[in-house]
Formats: sequence, C-alpha cells, structure tokens
Amino acid sequence: MNRIDWKHGKVEMVHGGGGRAMVELISQLFAKEFDNEFLNQGNDGAILAATNGRLVIATDSHVISPLFFPGGDIGSLSVHGTVNDVAMNGAKPLYLSASFILEEGFPLSDLKTIVQSMAAAARDAHVPIVTGDTKVVEKGKGDGVFITTTGIGEVYAGVSVSGNSVKPGDKILVSGSMGDHGVTILSQREHLGFSSQLQSDTQSLHDLVESMVNHFPQIRCLRDPTRGGLANTLNEIAKQSLVGITIEESQIPVKPQVAAACEFLGLDPLYVANEGKLIAICPAEYSNELLHLMKQHPKGAESAIVGEVTEDSHCFVQMVTKFGGRRMVDWLNGEQLPRIC
Amino acid sequence: MNRIDWKHGKVEMVHGGGGRAMVELISQLFAKEFDNEFLNQGNDGAILAATNGRLVIATDSHVISPLFFPGGDIGSLSVHGTVNDVAMNGAKPLYLSASFILEEGFPLSDLKTIVQSMAAAARDAHVPIVTGDTKVVEKGKGDGVFITTTGIGEVYAGVSVSGNSVKPGDKILVSGSMGDHGVTILSQREHLGFSSQLQSDTQSLHDLVESMVNHFPQIRCLRDPTRGGLANTLNEIAKQSLVGITIEESQIPVKPQVAAACEFLGLDPLYVANEGKLIAICPAEYSNELLHLMKQHPKGAESAIVGEVTEDSHCFVQMVTKFGGRRMVDWLNGEQLPRIC
Repeated sequence: MNRIDWKHGKVEMVHGGGGRAMVELISQLFAKEFDNEFLNQGNDGAILAATNGRLVIATDSHVISPLFFPGGDIGSLSVHGTVNDVAMNGAKPLYLSASFILEEGFPLSDLKTIVQSMAAAARDAHVPIVTGDTKVVEKGKGDGVFITTTGIGEVYAGVSVSGNSVKPGDKILVSGSMGDHGVTILSQREHLGFSSQLQSDTQSLHDLVESMVNHFPQIRCLRDPTRGGLANTLNEIAKQSLVGITIEESQIPVKPQVAAACEFLGLDPLYVANEGKLIAICPAEYSNELLHLMKQHPKGAESAIVGEVTEDSHCFVQMVTKFGGRRMVDWLNGEQLPRIC
Repeated sequence: MNRIDWKHGKVEMVHGGGGRAMVELISQLFAKEFDNEFLNQGNDGAILAATNGRLVIATDSHVISPLFFPGGDIGSLSVHGTVNDVAMNGAKPLYLSASFILEEGFPLSDLKTIVQSMAAAARDAHVPIVTGDTKVVEKGKGDGVFITTTGIGEVYAGVSVSGNSVKPGDKILVSGSMGDHGVTILSQREHLGFSSQLQSDTQSLHDLVESMVNHFPQIRCLRDPTRGGLANTLNEIAKQSLVGITIEESQIPVKPQVAAACEFLGLDPLYVANEGKLIAICPAEYSNELLHLMKQHPKGAESAIVGEVTEDSHCFVQMVTKFGGRRMVDWLNGEQLPRIC
C-alpha cells in the first residue's frame, strides 16, 4: 500500500478505476475519517440494524460553488442538507451514504479538508456515513467535487408531518433569519467587499426537530426553505394542501447585513436559500407554546411566527408589507442563484 | 404550468433553481415516469413502510461514457448497479432514490429517454424510485448527466453474506461470462468495427440472488465484479477473509467475441467490468447443487464453478492457466477503463 501525497497530490483517473489506487484513497481517506462499524464492514453497501418505525429516505446532490465559503464547505453542507431533509419528514436521521464525483486534477489536500469537514458534521449530528462510492471524471467534465448524500431515518412514533396536511387557521413559524446562506455564497462569488460580515447558516436541525415533535406531535408540516427560499417553499405547501398563505413582512427575521447585501445585489431575501432554518406549521392553539419552545433551543433562538394559513382555492401566497399593503409572493421564476447547494 | 418542449428543448440552469421551471421538469418528467405512491407524497424525501429485518443501504454514482450503449444506457445501468449492490448483501431491494446532476445544454429528449429507461428498469425489478433530486451545472462543468442512485433493502432472514467470511475449501462460482460490459463500452468509445457483436450484460440480479439464498442460506459471499472485474473482486475478498484463491482459466466463461475484442484492445477479461454477473462463494458440499440451481435461472444459465478458496497468509489470487501453469492474478494497477459505470 503506497502512502498518498496529501500535500502535492491531485485526483487522477486511476482513483476511480476500481484498482489499487482507489482502494488506497478509500482506506487512507474515507474509511479513516468516517470510521464506524458499518463502513468498516468493507462490502459494497452496509448492513444496518433493524428498525421499528416507518422509514424515511431523502437524497441530495451537492454542486455548490465555491466549494469553501464562510460558515462551511461542500462537505459539511452535504451532511446538513440531507440530515435536514430526513428530519423535515418528522424522522430521526440514522445513517448517511455519500457518493463522490471527483474531477481529475482536483487537489487531494482540498479533498481531505472536505472529507474531514463531512466527518465532523456527521459526528456532530450523530449520524454515521455508512457506505459510499467514488468516481473520477476527466478534467473539464466535472467541477472539483460533487457530493451526493442519501439519508435514512425513522419517523418518530405518533408524528405525521407533510406538505399536504396544513389547514386554514394554522400558524407559520420560522426558526431564524432568512437568506443568510444564499447571500453569503453570492457575495463570495462576486467578491463583494461586505462578504466578511456574512456567514452561511448551514447546520443540522434534527435536534431542534426532535425537541419540537416530541413536545408538539400536532405539528402538521416541517420544511427547510433551501433553493427558492421561504417564498417558494410556502408556494409548494399552499399548492400541496390547497390553501392560501399570508405572511407578515414585519415578522420575518432578516439580518441587517443580509438585507443590505440583498438590496445591493438586487435580491429578495424571501427567495434566497437557507441551509440551517426550518418552517413549521401548526394549529393556532399550540403556536405560542411551540414558539416558546423553539426560542429556548440554540438553533431556534430567533424563531418567529410569520404568518398563517388561509382559505384560498387559488393557493396564493400573499404578504402584508411593512407599509400595510398586500402583495403576491409568487413562485420563483428564473434562476435567482445557480449552484447554491 | 408550461409544457416542456421535449423535441428541441435543452437543460437550462433554471431547471435546477428550485423555482417554477424545476417543478415543471419534475412533474412532467420524473414524477410522471417514476410514478408511485411514495414519490407522489411530494415532500423532500419519502416516508416508507416499516420493515422487520436488518436493513441494507448501498449507493453508486454513475458517470459512464458514452451515455447510450448496446444493451442499455446510464438510466438502466443506474438502477441495475444499485439494485445489485443491495442484493449482494443478501438482501431484497425495496426502494431506490435517484439524484441527477445535469449539464446545461443537454438535450431534454435524451434526458427523457434516459429517465424512461430508468423507470422501465425499476418497474422490471419491482423496486420503486421513491425520492430524488435535480441539480444543474454550467456547460463545461459536467458531462451531460450523472446519476447517483441509493438503494435500501432488507436482509433475508437467516442469510449472512460478507467478504470476510469465506473459508479454505469453499468453491467459487460465477453466474455467466466475464467482461461483456467493459469491452462493449470501450469498443463503442473507440468506434471499433466489431462493436456490433458486443452487448453490455447490464441487468438486475436480485431475483437470481433471492432464489440462491432461499435455497442455500449457507452461501458465504456474494459480490458483483464491476470496476476491476473478477480479478480485483477476488483480491478484495481474499484480503478481507485472509485466504488465498485459486481459479481455473479453462473454467471461466468468456464469450468468443469478448475474448477477441480483449485481445485486439490489449485487455485481460479478468479485469474488465461486468454489470449483470455475480460471484458466489459457498462451502464445497453445496457447490454442485448451487451451480445446478443457478443454471436453471435465466440470468445464471452460463454459471460455472471457477475456483476455490485456499489457505494462504499472503492472500494471493492465482490462476491455473489453460496450459497448466500458474500465474498470479494481482490487483488492478492503473486505470484500465475509465468511466465504465
């Protein structure tokens, strides 16, 4: 077994060939950093313990550019994104798989940094990466590294959340400020001067979700407003549940530096991606107690009730503006921010 | 909702943006073709029934080039590859996720063909595609389409197969001819004249596996010899189980046209990828009965006993040649065939 040159080495086609070089990369990087009893089985796939409850599966490919950004990198993001997608189904995330598409010539030192960041995010979330795959494509046929993660979880007993079960009168809560992730990425890409004041909110939310559904199994819907932001996610839910939604602009938390950056960039923070925030919809009678619980959690300290569900056969999402007027909050048209996750 | 122009349309960045265009692509293509009760839940992830047995998870990214080849395409391959990885853990595949990384400018007509091929492969295998994701990268940052599939399965009761449990004296069986897939792909890529006589063996093997493990739960190891071929897979198993392996060249099925193509291309069929064949290792006393059973299955008609496990602290894989000599069958060094799956 040869030692890999982490300082000067680059990804070569041979690292995806199924031969000795691939085995070395797997054992000296992935197996070492992700180290757990399941991955160590060393087969094509992992055998896991039996579960009791309903299962959840969620998957996401991550193609974010740049790969490294304030607050995280593609490695931590690829763990958080899928852990959150599992959690938003009212489930406890149990296992992750990770599949890498590497571009020939990508520095092995950067790959190591990314894998270590993934490993740390997985450890923090207590969700092991139990199996994986590595492919290599020729220079110019990829873009450094793409990571696809898939998560398996188990739905909490007595919990049933879905986009199609919200009802008129329900209250809409968010767990914190909107737009941090997307604005950070775009500012990095455009090399804007104020980017130093911005940071992605990328984080795992399953612990916040666990606390929420354990205390309030009546929650009807959980969703993380990633691509398309709050506006698009609310439109999806309205369409699924055949309801309308009204939100209050004055109640939606947006950090001053994010609002300033959005104004400068011509973006609307309602449409900008988040990677560490959730939307919860619950019956009005529990909403204040739920808000209180969320605010006590470190990942929900800035939570707010931002609107409510209405009867509306057109499934419109509307916003009461800070000036008291009303405007439509339409689906995202066009591509506001490509490769944001 | 706009109708997509399947004839002239191309993938645009907006198809990955989380907005209206992405919703249209998902509903008019993925949801329509993959149609099943789980995908139709319409959430970020799918809620599945509870299972009883031990779970299996397996994942693979598919980056094959060319995307279309005799016998299949990246769509069917991405289903077969992961269904097989789950099955090789002695498990019944239950669900698949599919995540797409599309390159801007890729023809939507080709994407539709690929997705229809995936859908057909999933239906044939009775394994629904229950959740997915779509990302788009700029032209020149990808290569048409990459597909990552992840499979979940349930281990058959009483079955325990693994690369680390084979024992000296065990017999080694293969389910058919070696090298068909890899040689087909390379011949296509090199535009070789004889490529019309070649066809990939890409197929799902879980039904063959089900029959095998139901009748012979004593099978110790199942593996599909994909990248790196038979040679590499046997080296992996020898290393995992700390044994040696001896195979008989005269017993290894290789189609005449594959042997001829290998000779022309300077390839050794032992190192060439298969996508519809498996290796089974079982105690000698059951091997003839297992062979008989495999030969009765349409996907195992050309099965053969090709060798046996030996005691060898060096974990060497050796081959008795057709001329009666012996040679080492080493790990694959270097990249014989890039982007073969």
